[in-house]
Amino acid sequence: MSDMTSAAEAPRSPGRPRSSRADEAIVEATLDLLAEGSTIEALSIEAIAARAGVGKATIYRRWPGKDALLLDALRRLKGVLPNPAGHSVRDDLVLLVGAVGHNIDPRAAKIMPCLVPEVNRSPDHFRLYQNIIAPRRQLMREVLRRGVRLGELRADLDIEVAMALLTGPMLMQRMLRWHPELDDVLLPDRIVDGVLDGIRAR
Amino acid sequence: MSDMTSAAEAPRSPGRPRSSRADEAIVEATLDLLAEGSTIEALSIEAIAARAGVGKATIYRRWPGKDALLLDALRRLKGVLPNPAGHSVRDDLVLLVGAVGHNIDPRAAKIMPCLVPEVNRSPDHFRLYQNIIAPRRQLMREVLRRGVRLGELRADLDIEVAMALLTGPMLMQRMLRWHPELDDVLLPDRIVDGVLDGIRAR
Repeated sequence: MSDMTSAAEAPRSPGRPRSSRADEAIVEATLDLLAEGSTIEALSIEAIAARAGVGKATIYRRWPGKDALLLDALRRLKGVLPNPAGHSVRDDLVLLVGAVGHNIDPRAAKIMPCLVPEVNRSPDHFRLYQNIIAPRRQLMREVLRRGVRLGELRADLDIEVAMALLTGPMLMQRMLRWHPELDDVLLPDRIVDGVLDGIRAR
Repeated sequence: MSDMTSAAEAPRSPGRPRSSRADEAIVEATLDLLAEGSTIEALSIEAIAARAGVGKATIYRRWPGKDALLLDALRRLKGVLPNPAGHSVRDDLVLLVGAVGHNIDPRAAKIMPCLVPEVNRSPDHFRLYQNIIAPRRQLMREVLRRGVRLGELRADLDIEVAMALLTGPMLMQRMLRWHPELDDVLLPDRIVDGVLDGIRAR
């Protein structure tokens, strides 16, 4: 699973040209600066250009602005979009829940938790965060809709609440090792089965 | 709901004397410094003492150290522990889920998101975070155990997974306005009913 592949998977910013060595250097410089503790607020196109050894114009030829570059760079941390097999709704949900908050790039462990205060401070960063997760959220929405259509999930299902139930616990666990006694490897199965079957006695 | 009450509700640090005007000034100074952007790492007993207008010895007479003071101060943000009525397991869970990530003190909106990076950086801050939430987590554990005992919840219920399903979505919503389309006021009922009944068609 190479970064090239993941970039190819992620929806591109409008007008972004085919990837190149310069693209790579710019995205890597962006992620390095964030992993070294730069806030999104403080991160400047100047600093990224200097770190990547390119001119600012080279960046602006490829991305309309900082947020578009950040979106490509932060999505890169997550790797390729998961690819549900489309047979069992349960198995597809386990795959997607297992991918929640998962990153292939070790820099994510330094970068992602630091986004929380920034997303709270700024509506722009809130939109950026929503855009980072949008493709994965859409994948899960489609699996849940398929489950309703096929009669595997309740006809009155509230898709947005169901997504929150499935992804919230996994995100908290990845972000904070929140319930230390839960086994992260088994957790996706346990979350999906818990949400499918419910906890009420029958 | 006064801060005094909330301090009285929260388990005290060992050897902490009865609350006093100096206690209040010290706790308020701690929360003010955090709300103004001081990290937990950077926060010093010296700075707290100076801000509170007391000597360091006054702080050390009341708290064994910085973490014990932080625990009292950060719990103070949350106010009194919720008090489940003990009639309906569902209603008690709605009350407890509604209290998840809820704070009575406006400084919490500045302080709490900034804990996420710090909890990730430091095992001490991770323990601090676990200690902040421990009393509320224990309350929910007791309600779930009661539900199993009374036969309202499945006999094979995994209490820790159930708590993660109930609290994860609410925490994410409070921390990040994560699913902007979800109504925070209705969310506790929808989370509890979703987790009780499950999403599988019957």
